[in-house]
Amino acid sequence: MLTEFDTSLPSIKQVQKLIQENTQIELKLITGDVIAGKLLWQDLQCFCIMSEDNQKTTVWKQAIAFLKIGE
Amino acid sequence: MLTEFDTSLPSIKQVQKLIQENTQIELKLITGDVIAGKLLWQDLQCFCIMSEDNQKTTVWKQAIAFLKIGE
Amino acid sequence: MLTEFDTSLPSIKQVQKLIQENTQIELKLITGDVIAGKLLWQDLQCFCIMSEDNQKTTVWKQAIAFLKIGE
Amino acid sequence: MLTEFDTSLPSIKQVQKLIQENTQIELKLITGDVIAGKLLWQDLQCFCIMSEDNQKTTVWKQAIAFLKIGE
Amino acid sequence: MLTEFDTSLPSIKQVQKLIQENTQIELKLITGDVIAGKLLWQDLQCFCIMSEDNQKTTVWKQAIAFLKIGE
Amino acid sequence: MLTEFDTSLPSIKQVQKLIQENTQIELKLITGDVIAGKLLWQDLQCFCIMSEDNQKTTVWKQAIAFLKIGE
Repeated sequence: MLTEFDTSLPSIKQVQKLIQENTQIELKLITGDVIAGKLLWQDLQCFCIMSEDNQKTTVWKQAIAFLKIGE
Repeated sequence: MLTEFDTSLPSIKQVQKLIQENTQIELKLITGDVIAGKLLWQDLQCFCIMSEDNQKTTVWKQAIAFLKIGE
Repeated sequence: MLTEFDTSLPSIKQVQKLIQENTQIELKLITGDVIAGKLLWQDLQCFCIMSEDNQKTTVWKQAIAFLKIGE
Repeated sequence: MLTEFDTSLPSIKQVQKLIQENTQIELKLITGDVIAGKLLWQDLQCFCIMSEDNQKTTVWKQAIAFLKIGE
Repeated sequence: MLTEFDTSLPSIKQVQKLIQENTQIELKLITGDVIAGKLLWQDLQCFCIMSEDNQKTTVWKQAIAFLKIGE
Repeated sequence: MLTEFDTSLPSIKQVQKLIQENTQIELKLITGDVIAGKLLWQDLQCFCIMSEDNQKTTVWKQAIAFLKIGE
């Protein structure tokens, strides 16, 4: 569990790269929801995703199960 | 995970802006509940939302999956 | 997430007021359970509620999704 | 959330009293399971319960939704 | 919640004894899964269990609801 | 719960060994999802898995219930 936003962590850097390269991703949440789109930003608490219909969704990291590239 | 209420975080500032601008939002909770309305305040632990029927609901952040603008 | 019981927090003060004013509330839990009644006390870890049938229930805060006034 | 076992907390003292007085209780867990019996001990991490069929169950506090007296 | 592995805690010592005495146990997880077998080791984060078919399973403590002896 | 990535922990070392030896594993998540494949890396927050169809999945540790070898 992160208690500070450590930008040297591989998982933080991976997400930073996905943001910079505008990569299409898919987030599976513990609610069962799947949110697909491009990551806009991350901080210690949340991800922000732009979905294909130009809807911005702020996802709490506590609710994330996994992230997949593309599809 | 936040252990203090850091108002410089993008996700905290985004919510602060939604409060100030009286924006209609939708919160999806890990229970599957969706709560729609306008945010009244946030603190380290909770959000308070005024729903369309003038009911105030205090939501624990631990239960939030994601937040969407409007609809 | 709280790691100490900070009585200056809006969400802690709101609950303190609900206790003092003997307000009828409803707690929705992440199990899906809804517990209705009046709050007796809160601490860092739990709420204690007196339900309408005079049953005391101690609820762990970790299990709370949201709180509504009355009904 | 507790990070140390603070015996001055009302919710810790309540459980201590239930142990000493050998009170019949019911724990509802976030799995939906209900465990009924008498509390044997608590620590920072767990409760131990003796159920009516003399089975000892160690319950992780992280899984507790609420506790009710008797029935 | 434990943030360090405190071997003086009753719940940690109980598990240590179950490991040493090679006791048959049952773990119920918050997924609903039940894993039966003998505990091999514990650390701050996980339990390792050898099930009856000689399969080793590493269980994250965050997912444990309760532990029962034998059956 | 880990708040730093302690490489002397048995559970961290076990995963490190599974990465080095390119072992086929199976992760069961609290969503019910099962992800099978080979571990690529771990950090404090996540595991990265290469599944049999060459899809990389980043799994948040908070969502892991258990890990099994092979099958």
